[in-house]
Amino acid sequence: MSAKTQFQHIALIAKPDDNERLRPTLQSLQQFLLDRNINLSFDQRAAEVLGHAEVMQLAELAQRADLAIVIGGDGTLLASARDLVDAGIPLLGINLGRLGFLVDISPDDMLQTVGAVLDGHYEEDTRFLLSCTIGEQAPQLALNDVVLHKWNIARMIEFETWVNGSFIDTQRSDGVIISTPTGSTAYALSGGGPLLAPSLDAIAMVPICPHTLSNRPVVIHGNSQIMLSVCGKTESEHVRVTCDGQASVTIQPGDEIHVAKHPVPLRLLHPTGHDHYQILRAKLGWGRQRS
Amino acid sequence: MSAKTQFQHIALIAKPDDNERLRPTLQSLQQFLLDRNINLSFDQRAAEVLGHAEVMQLAELAQRADLAIVIGGDGTLLASARDLVDAGIPLLGINLGRLGFLVDISPDDMLQTVGAVLDGHYEEDTRFLLSCTIGEQAPQLALNDVVLHKWNIARMIEFETWVNGSFIDTQRSDGVIISTPTGSTAYALSGGGPLLAPSLDAIAMVPICPHTLSNRPVVIHGNSQIMLSVCGKTESEHVRVTCDGQASVTIQPGDEIHVAKHPVPLRLLHPTGHDHYQILRAKLGWGRQRS
Amino acid sequence: MSAKTQFQHIALIAKPDDNERLRPTLQSLQQFLLDRNINLSFDQRAAEVLGHAEVMQLAELAQRADLAIVIGGDGTLLASARDLVDAGIPLLGINLGRLGFLVDISPDDMLQTVGAVLDGHYEEDTRFLLSCTIGEQAPQLALNDVVLHKWNIARMIEFETWVNGSFIDTQRSDGVIISTPTGSTAYALSGGGPLLAPSLDAIAMVPICPHTLSNRPVVIHGNSQIMLSVCGKTESEHVRVTCDGQASVTIQPGDEIHVAKHPVPLRLLHPTGHDHYQILRAKLGWGRQRS
Amino acid sequence: MSAKTQFQHIALIAKPDDNERLRPTLQSLQQFLLDRNINLSFDQRAAEVLGHAEVMQLAELAQRADLAIVIGGDGTLLASARDLVDAGIPLLGINLGRLGFLVDISPDDMLQTVGAVLDGHYEEDTRFLLSCTIGEQAPQLALNDVVLHKWNIARMIEFETWVNGSFIDTQRSDGVIISTPTGSTAYALSGGGPLLAPSLDAIAMVPICPHTLSNRPVVIHGNSQIMLSVCGKTESEHVRVTCDGQASVTIQPGDEIHVAKHPVPLRLLHPTGHDHYQILRAKLGWGRQRS
Repeated sequence: MSAKTQFQHIALIAKPDDNERLRPTLQSLQQFLLDRNINLSFDQRAAEVLGHAEVMQLAELAQRADLAIVIGGDGTLLASARDLVDAGIPLLGINLGRLGFLVDISPDDMLQTVGAVLDGHYEEDTRFLLSCTIGEQAPQLALNDVVLHKWNIARMIEFETWVNGSFIDTQRSDGVIISTPTGSTAYALSGGGPLLAPSLDAIAMVPICPHTLSNRPVVIHGNSQIMLSVCGKTESEHVRVTCDGQASVTIQPGDEIHVAKHPVPLRLLHPTGHDHYQILRAKLGWGRQRS
Repeated sequence: MSAKTQFQHIALIAKPDDNERLRPTLQSLQQFLLDRNINLSFDQRAAEVLGHAEVMQLAELAQRADLAIVIGGDGTLLASARDLVDAGIPLLGINLGRLGFLVDISPDDMLQTVGAVLDGHYEEDTRFLLSCTIGEQAPQLALNDVVLHKWNIARMIEFETWVNGSFIDTQRSDGVIISTPTGSTAYALSGGGPLLAPSLDAIAMVPICPHTLSNRPVVIHGNSQIMLSVCGKTESEHVRVTCDGQASVTIQPGDEIHVAKHPVPLRLLHPTGHDHYQILRAKLGWGRQRS
Repeated sequence: MSAKTQFQHIALIAKPDDNERLRPTLQSLQQFLLDRNINLSFDQRAAEVLGHAEVMQLAELAQRADLAIVIGGDGTLLASARDLVDAGIPLLGINLGRLGFLVDISPDDMLQTVGAVLDGHYEEDTRFLLSCTIGEQAPQLALNDVVLHKWNIARMIEFETWVNGSFIDTQRSDGVIISTPTGSTAYALSGGGPLLAPSLDAIAMVPICPHTLSNRPVVIHGNSQIMLSVCGKTESEHVRVTCDGQASVTIQPGDEIHVAKHPVPLRLLHPTGHDHYQILRAKLGWGRQRS
Repeated sequence: MSAKTQFQHIALIAKPDDNERLRPTLQSLQQFLLDRNINLSFDQRAAEVLGHAEVMQLAELAQRADLAIVIGGDGTLLASARDLVDAGIPLLGINLGRLGFLVDISPDDMLQTVGAVLDGHYEEDTRFLLSCTIGEQAPQLALNDVVLHKWNIARMIEFETWVNGSFIDTQRSDGVIISTPTGSTAYALSGGGPLLAPSLDAIAMVPICPHTLSNRPVVIHGNSQIMLSVCGKTESEHVRVTCDGQASVTIQPGDEIHVAKHPVPLRLLHPTGHDHYQILRAKLGWGRQRS
């Protein structure tokens, strides 16, 4: 049996609908962890798949566990990150077949890699989330991006951007993607944004189909306070804000949209030897030949 | 008095809300044309501004007139083009202060230029429109572009593209802009599309924020038959089609969206010496210095 | 034995240095064609690999043969196209392992496909070349692109572009790629140009790293007469013109660079069922997942 | 007379060839500074224009002066920055008519602004330079960018990129622009790079016309150690490295090109109320209308 690990209580979090792939992965992982005398808690989906009656709410789960293992795709880890970041427990991501930027352990290597992590062999990566506050609404978190975009309208919207109280510009476009380094491989990349090194303390503001061709992506310091406000003929009902591609938030006339770094960082664990650029090369097909 | 012109009956079409600028322009133009014994008809807005009781429906106006003078911005001319193309009468565009790609006569030169046109001194430019047919709905026309785009959803949509019965690709993106040469200076340009020479018999298909970075704009022959259909997990309620940035059209499950050149070309008149690239240079700021 | 084919005399043209792959391919092809009583001629490389003493100059080869089979990569076919286009004989391209846009027959299917072509089962594709004339020099041909670019200098160059006698713009950039539809998948694509349908009668002018961000690719009619001339502080010694990425041509002070469609089209044969977009999908990785 | 300033000895540095504009500016500035009992030194061009016999070498000038006023364009300031950064004296830039990102004082406001700076009313901006070391050659400095690019060849070059000892990718392209935040408004912007906030501690690596379309700009931490090396079929004679667009440096076979932040930061003074984004808006035409 292995030496005692620093992780005594692990939360298992799952998402995929595909029970045929999820169940054996979860069962195998559960057995492996129980054999090491580790306490386990389960979120709703993991409990359901494993047939456990006891489901733990995320808040309680976050309080008890000292590590969360997330099984699914990058989207699953994004959601878990927003839910668990404030608890300060680290996340470890296992994909179900397709390599992710965040869920970088494959089911094939799972037991060996998780074992190594329990033995203290891992690399800890710190990522920041964005916090978005609109009017009086409760702040929303995003690990990838906060996107201001047109809604229920075919025409461009118009809005002002301010950073740290300085006016940047008035822009007509389909919207703007405010992206963390983590999000720079996601929607921001499709919008023409640059790739940001994962540990860079910076935020990219990527205009979506801007009317003015010189409205190019701007990269600012991670501690910047961003403020967006709708202007011109654009009505607030035709603008929404979406965090990590999830539910869109409505805006009231006159609302200021404030975006800034969330004060609590996310702890992300990787297997030893984790290489972000290796994943980039694999997922972006760098080095492939065109002709 | 000038020699008799080929244009005996002219329709005046106006759009702008700004009466202070529109009224004197319309009055001056009306007087100038009456002095030349030309019959005039008015659309609703022009009649309202000039205080005429008689408003003519566009259909009747198109039947009677042998020239339509459109006063407003490019958007006004786009609408007139869709309304009047099938009547086969040529359009002449007068802008109200800001140069347009289509409304290229300024109010300052208006009388002189219109006089020259009446005397036969003009250049005729032929543009094509796109016709978009969705399921059983009546075809919609577009002089600039037919855009398939996400609607009421933050995530990307997925759709297939077929050209002349050949499969092109399955794409995940925010949508696709199908643009005429006329539209290549508009939304398609913001989306990263190329500028097409106005007379080029070609259609550009410009992906909007595509997930796959190699999904680049594709330019195909103007006679191509394009078919788009929603696929993957995308539901038809989250997709709409918009022609020339106007009202969005809903899609039913299983609908095929067919886009092809409208059989009747648009006749667009320009002052002699009209230079498309001069307008491009002015509007795109070509040759301006950055540093 | 098969029915008599329209191709009675075939030229075999080869390029690759890799004898180990080239020799068996050539030998197998030679035997197959001799068995069908077809007369064969060989260019220098093919003769060398097959051990034939008789080498035929391209000019003579072009006169005698009624089909040229080109073995190599797209670059080999580009060179053969420039050499043989004026002879009017069709080209058929066999790649040596890596699919090309132009050499679309794999060695594995070679005998079967060539046999089918000889039996009349093929699709003929017509491509145009560009002809570039600089000062008093002999015209150069290009199937992909004519590129005006900086040479022996780190700074941007400045030049004017004219089309059909109309001034387009004065541009500061690293140069411009003037591309055929065939070339639109090559260097022009790297420069940000659009993909042009192979049969589109159009030319793309793609600026390379332009100083003015609104200097976007422009697509003009295939019959356009393009004229470039160096201006501003740029000296002619710091500019060169390159056709299909081959030897760069020097420019003298005051030289005008004229580019237009070559009057003789290239005949390119493909196996029946050839699908340009299938090759695009394969080579550009369309549909691959990023996350 | 004004209170005693912290700047007792000022170096005047000039560049432009245009004596008619340069002389009155220099004369007026000289008189203004002498009236305030400030010691002056002159570089070669300033001395020549002002008719001073005594020319001071930059090294000596840097030792004696506690402020350098640079008159010219951004290029003049780039050169002065490379020359003077190690002396640690701040730079103040006066343009001769065209606003620069770095030379942001216009001749019209010159005396008033310089007076205010002498009185202590200024903002100090810290910029970093890059240091580039190739083989055994002495390091070269760059305030804007270090560019690895093809030379004397029409084809793409191939090279590897490593950051902090980690392999990033093997790239085929026309080269790569390694840019500071200061350089992000210059050549890197033309190459498709993002705008970096001036104070961001980050470096952008912008591929020039990359063969693989997913080779997008990458932004890494300012303290990164970058290493480039030529590979594949590319010969070192066909590659050069250029710092700030100045003289190109040759490469020997096997040379590693190392690029990293120069340890001594540049001190750049601006008038109070300096606004980088105001300059961006002016120079990039943000907010201008296209249609």
